[in-house]
Amino acid sequence: MLEVEEALAIVLDRTRPRTPVETALTPRALGRVLAESVTSELDSPPFAKSVMDGYAVRSADATSSVALTVIEEVAAGKTPTKTIGPGQATRVMTGAPIPFGADAVIPHEQTELTENTVQLRRPVAAGEFVIPRGREMAAGEVVLNKGTVLTPAVLGLLSAVGRTTVIAQPVPRLAVVPTGDELVEPPAAPGPGQIRNSNGPMLMAQATRAGAEARYMGIARDDRDALRNLLDDALAASDIVVLSGGVSAGKYDYVPDVLRELGVEAHFHKIRMKPGKPLFFGTRGETLVFGLPGNPLSSFVGFELFVRPALRKMSGYAIPGPVFVGLPLAAPLEASNDRPTYAPGRLEVSSEGQRVRGAAWFGSADLRGLAGADALIRLPAGSVKYASGYIVSTLPVN
Amino acid sequence: MLEVEEALAIVLDRTRPRTPVETALTPRALGRVLAESVTSELDSPPFAKSVMDGYAVRSADATSSVALTVIEEVAAGKTPTKTIGPGQATRVMTGAPIPFGADAVIPHEQTELTENTVQLRRPVAAGEFVIPRGREMAAGEVVLNKGTVLTPAVLGLLSAVGRTTVIAQPVPRLAVVPTGDELVEPPAAPGPGQIRNSNGPMLMAQATRAGAEARYMGIARDDRDALRNLLDDALAASDIVVLSGGVSAGKYDYVPDVLRELGVEAHFHKIRMKPGKPLFFGTRGETLVFGLPGNPLSSFVGFELFVRPALRKMSGYAIPGPVFVGLPLAAPLEASNDRPTYAPGRLEVSSEGQRVRGAAWFGSADLRGLAGADALIRLPAGSVKYASGYIVSTLPVN
Repeated sequence: MLEVEEALAIVLDRTRPRTPVETALTPRALGRVLAESVTSELDSPPFAKSVMDGYAVRSADATSSVALTVIEEVAAGKTPTKTIGPGQATRVMTGAPIPFGADAVIPHEQTELTENTVQLRRPVAAGEFVIPRGREMAAGEVVLNKGTVLTPAVLGLLSAVGRTTVIAQPVPRLAVVPTGDELVEPPAAPGPGQIRNSNGPMLMAQATRAGAEARYMGIARDDRDALRNLLDDALAASDIVVLSGGVSAGKYDYVPDVLRELGVEAHFHKIRMKPGKPLFFGTRGETLVFGLPGNPLSSFVGFELFVRPALRKMSGYAIPGPVFVGLPLAAPLEASNDRPTYAPGRLEVSSEGQRVRGAAWFGSADLRGLAGADALIRLPAGSVKYASGYIVSTLPVN
Repeated sequence: MLEVEEALAIVLDRTRPRTPVETALTPRALGRVLAESVTSELDSPPFAKSVMDGYAVRSADATSSVALTVIEEVAAGKTPTKTIGPGQATRVMTGAPIPFGADAVIPHEQTELTENTVQLRRPVAAGEFVIPRGREMAAGEVVLNKGTVLTPAVLGLLSAVGRTTVIAQPVPRLAVVPTGDELVEPPAAPGPGQIRNSNGPMLMAQATRAGAEARYMGIARDDRDALRNLLDDALAASDIVVLSGGVSAGKYDYVPDVLRELGVEAHFHKIRMKPGKPLFFGTRGETLVFGLPGNPLSSFVGFELFVRPALRKMSGYAIPGPVFVGLPLAAPLEASNDRPTYAPGRLEVSSEGQRVRGAAWFGSADLRGLAGADALIRLPAGSVKYASGYIVSTLPVN
């Protein structure tokens, strides 16, 4: 049986960043990935500028306490008109350009103004409180590389270089298909032998949070023709199709057969993990198909371990994850499992860093236990008995 | 001058969760906060059910290898019609109800079927592979408390208890107002003495990411009447107004005066921090007003340290943050600052946990340096010289 790491390698190997790249408006592109390199067309700052409210001076004049004649006053957004000569100074606001002749600024709190004369209370060194032209970036310089994630600060930088649109990786389209005759849609009350569909809304939210354009296809019933029609639609309009249920070895689980009929090539359908062993992965062209087990925790874990990384690689992220972090246990943890296990945990923060604590859960159907968790803890197969402080591999999930 | 911690306490003390609470559709409420307690109206599972494909048996019959007569076959979603008597078994699929009489399930891999007779390869203990009715939650039990954040798993649990709507905290409305005559909107080219407005898009993205309904008001010019009109509009339609620029001590900084005229009570306008000392905070009724300094890094840091926590408290989060984590330095760090400083950093992950590294930056105007960072490192006033591995207080920001 495949190990999780082998299975993930197969998934990522079959995943390509989605094409074609497209033009996106920067204000709305938060979280997307740049598909071009961005060059600055200007020097920033465009002029030597003051970082303080004060007086622009010639440092040569200001070697000791002197009085200088104030010849002009320059606000941010205005341009100096006079060159500073010996014995002269210009009042400058924060952000204002430094006039020709000046090479430093003294903050106004360190001066005293009488009529048109400013008395300096200390000497001033060349360059003080001045940012030289082009310090941040020079015209022609690449300031953002292809593959950069569009964070708030990156969006600010794009605005600074005049960009309101960028070439970005397209957002993957992900279809969610819960399967099974036992499911009813909330708020309907489940009849005998039925349960409410909770995986549909949960997977939709996981997909949305992971940056997908998520589309809900409705419940596929245990009927070959209906299932085939629904999956045909899902495959035609999606980059990733995520099913839940219908992939274990039960007699009524048609999903793998129907996918084969629709031209989906199967790559694996079992992983040595808990929860979620019977996990199906297939492809049709560049479209990925995941069949997650129907139990809520299996479905949740399968999404975080395989679907989310594929989605992120398809979105253009250089590091698709999952990024497990080694964290010390906040409490002892005992477990005994026949396969590597991904157990719900809770993160805790202290001044000495993060820690993680195993959360109570009784198995892969325990949605309530999962709802109280914000991390998954990776445990090896076999029996383990860890003390507090033992470092466990942890995946934050909220 | 106020310390950051004192200033944050003043802000949070003036911040109330936004009212009135409102009905929200669960699929769209991801990230919002529950404003009611949610009770389960059903037992989950609603029936004792099988967690494996296999045979439901009476454990009393299965103390040693025996052959049992298969009397029925039950798929998930179906209801058993026959009670199991001595020497009998029922074929059950994963998720199917356990028939009356049975108290355990044996997986089909551990059996052999010949005609209507199933041979068990091992004894079966009572309760094996069966989840009892109500194990996850019982009817009448509170399963989610007021204040719970609507994560994907919580949305799944809400669906399981039949909820498609919840009473949720409303989303705060946040207005972004960049100020200053020196600003031009991208893509326009800045003229002499001008710079492009980068804080507007950056703050909009920060606000969106923090869960606000963000509204961009356009640039307020250095003109008292225009500024007053624009702020009047912003105050009337927002829970939080965020200005950038116009709050330092320059002669042309009208903002504090105009806010006073509009009935905004000032609580502080200076904080002992770097970048971002001249940070204004005021209130009018329950509306919060933040005046952030105009330099990009000052604006960014001011948002993360004060606006984001206020926004989260207003959104109903029990822990508004900022949540600093103690992380070891990945490289030595030297700094000398006259005030407590929040410097850009980069997070790194290894099997031994997260680490952080100081990022290159040359001051509060360095948007390019900030764009390469994903954390802020808190440094004390004075000179510090830390070795690798020293634990520094770190705020992840992306």
